[in-house]
Amino acid sequence: MSATTPAATPAPHGERPGRIMSGEMAEQPAVLRRILDEGAPGIRETAERIAARGPRFVLLTARGTSDNAALYAKYLLEIQLGKPCGLTSMSTTTAYGARQDLTDCLVIAVSQSGGSPDLVASTRAAREAGAVTLAVTNNPGSPLAEAAEFHIDILAGPERALPATKTYTAELLSLYLLVEGLRAAGGDGGAGSTGGIAGGAFGSAAKALPDLAESVLARRDEVRRLAARYRFAERMVITSRGYGYPTAKEAALKLMETSYIPALSYSGADLLHGPLAMVDNVSPVIAIVTDGRGGRALQPVLDRLKDRGADLVVIGPERQVAEASAGFVLPTGDVPEELQPILEILPLQMLAYEVTIARGQDPDAPRALAKVTETR
Amino acid sequence: MSATTPAATPAPHGERPGRIMSGEMAEQPAVLRRILDEGAPGIRETAERIAARGPRFVLLTARGTSDNAALYAKYLLEIQLGKPCGLTSMSTTTAYGARQDLTDCLVIAVSQSGGSPDLVASTRAAREAGAVTLAVTNNPGSPLAEAAEFHIDILAGPERALPATKTYTAELLSLYLLVEGLRAAGGDGGAGSTGGIAGGAFGSAAKALPDLAESVLARRDEVRRLAARYRFAERMVITSRGYGYPTAKEAALKLMETSYIPALSYSGADLLHGPLAMVDNVSPVIAIVTDGRGGRALQPVLDRLKDRGADLVVIGPERQVAEASAGFVLPTGDVPEELQPILEILPLQMLAYEVTIARGQDPDAPRALAKVTETR
Repeated sequence: MSATTPAATPAPHGERPGRIMSGEMAEQPAVLRRILDEGAPGIRETAERIAARGPRFVLLTARGTSDNAALYAKYLLEIQLGKPCGLTSMSTTTAYGARQDLTDCLVIAVSQSGGSPDLVASTRAAREAGAVTLAVTNNPGSPLAEAAEFHIDILAGPERALPATKTYTAELLSLYLLVEGLRAAGGDGGAGSTGGIAGGAFGSAAKALPDLAESVLARRDEVRRLAARYRFAERMVITSRGYGYPTAKEAALKLMETSYIPALSYSGADLLHGPLAMVDNVSPVIAIVTDGRGGRALQPVLDRLKDRGADLVVIGPERQVAEASAGFVLPTGDVPEELQPILEILPLQMLAYEVTIARGQDPDAPRALAKVTETR
Repeated sequence: MSATTPAATPAPHGERPGRIMSGEMAEQPAVLRRILDEGAPGIRETAERIAARGPRFVLLTARGTSDNAALYAKYLLEIQLGKPCGLTSMSTTTAYGARQDLTDCLVIAVSQSGGSPDLVASTRAAREAGAVTLAVTNNPGSPLAEAAEFHIDILAGPERALPATKTYTAELLSLYLLVEGLRAAGGDGGAGSTGGIAGGAFGSAAKALPDLAESVLARRDEVRRLAARYRFAERMVITSRGYGYPTAKEAALKLMETSYIPALSYSGADLLHGPLAMVDNVSPVIAIVTDGRGGRALQPVLDRLKDRGADLVVIGPERQVAEASAGFVLPTGDVPEELQPILEILPLQMLAYEVTIARGQDPDAPRALAKVTETR
């Protein structure tokens, strides 16, 4: 756990700071379209082959931004497929040499680069321990793609900015399609929750996403106004519940790795178990409110925050935004709750970018970040 | 998710602030002794009955401090038993109504009070879904203890302070004994890693803990000197790897819920994936270094932090403390790595207490904390 490879070069004198990150954020509608048009058939086929093996338990392995995408997949797998899931603690294999019996387990490793040695090692170990292994990466030629039995290419194109943006939304959509495929192949439309992945042709529930993403990304002025609130913030709390919780974690990571503001993410339920003591007039809160059951479960937390006089910014439906200090109304249209995280993160990526610019820093050049972090 | 029950009363005028919390911290050696002397036989018997059911996967459910104890158990179960594990996302059941097939699953719910309605609901749902269910609580008469098929009483005695201390270490030791019992009953001394739970009579590896805990708790002056570093800190980063990682998370929670300092916890590997950008001369770091494989895996992170000129405080072995800016040498003696977390958290509980006192606040009266948080 030490070697690191430098990636994007910071803006030379005279060039606009953050140009690499903003360019990649802008590519997201096109990447989502590409996955739906070109990637979906292959993902569906992979899902069918995996479903035929009948995995009963799913383990997800990832780090950083990809770990937040893995957490999103965990919600999907538990709710939509009724499969018990876990996020792995990689060090149990790489540092402690644990030997697990992974018969009947599906192990999904998610990684932008597919190059992190500990991810490769733990995926190899999982395969030897009897698991069905799947790598979800942005590089089909990567060691991780090779180590796993199955591979899904997220088709995001080369990512050069250090803060990952387009690979995150590409991972989310790819993982969504995987779970939709597993569910269809399982033939058990009734498994999991009542509010299942929408019916219709494969991927059809997601087809509005590229246009909606485009409309969100066009609202830069709104985000810039929100960013002004945080220019001098010394800390932030980000909360959500259910499908929106991975968005809260990813938004916190994005804010920290670009602007260095300590951003703490909590599920709404956990926030009430202690850290709420930290929320006061000097600790602004961002709440991600999905339009659905997760958002409804978060409502008492929003009420509690308002009672405390918190500075509350809501990313979500119009009504919750109107009741908050400020916010960003998410155009979810008919997008089901489980797909909204792909849109929710966009204003938050933009916010991290704008706050960083406002603080006079370069989002392309975080102080200590390397594109492939070689943890072992 | 809204109703809350007030618990401990803050210090009236003239009484010493933090007296409830410090009294309960001081009880820890006695609680550990009680578990080893009176609790261990029952835990062993429960472990045998659970092992006889042959669970293949383990899910852990908890919130707040107990969630950190659950994470510790996850490391033990993966490393010592080779069982795939997951921490549950409770909202998948309580908000989304996911119906899972939990045949062959052991579901362990950990809770001080045993009273949180969402924990009770999700444990009931797990039992109906075919899981073997076990509640680990400080209240054998609680709804959670009743909802689960099996129960382990952590014997910590009533806890009145809002920041949990003695129930955390009691949960850790009880969970350790559970895993030792499962391993012994499984008869597969070879499962899991090579560095297994020590042999000898049941619980014998833990027998030095109460005396060692007493010696740590006696070093209040040392902790007070450390606390002076953080009196004006605006944020902190706490890191570890392997068995020490739950300690990092629990230390961060304790610091936040008493002193309100934003404390961010990361596994050493994750710290290199972005948040390291946040560590600089104004963001002090506390590293928990276990004496063993986890501590060795953390070494490159410590080196990296030193290269960056970070203010680094180490809780761990003498050598790593000597190389850091400051620290607290942990007397681990012959205590195996997997039991060290029970000692590691003690100076960090004391630190949270002392920092809070130094900042003129009352550790017994966090602003928004209720003892039983009724998330639904």
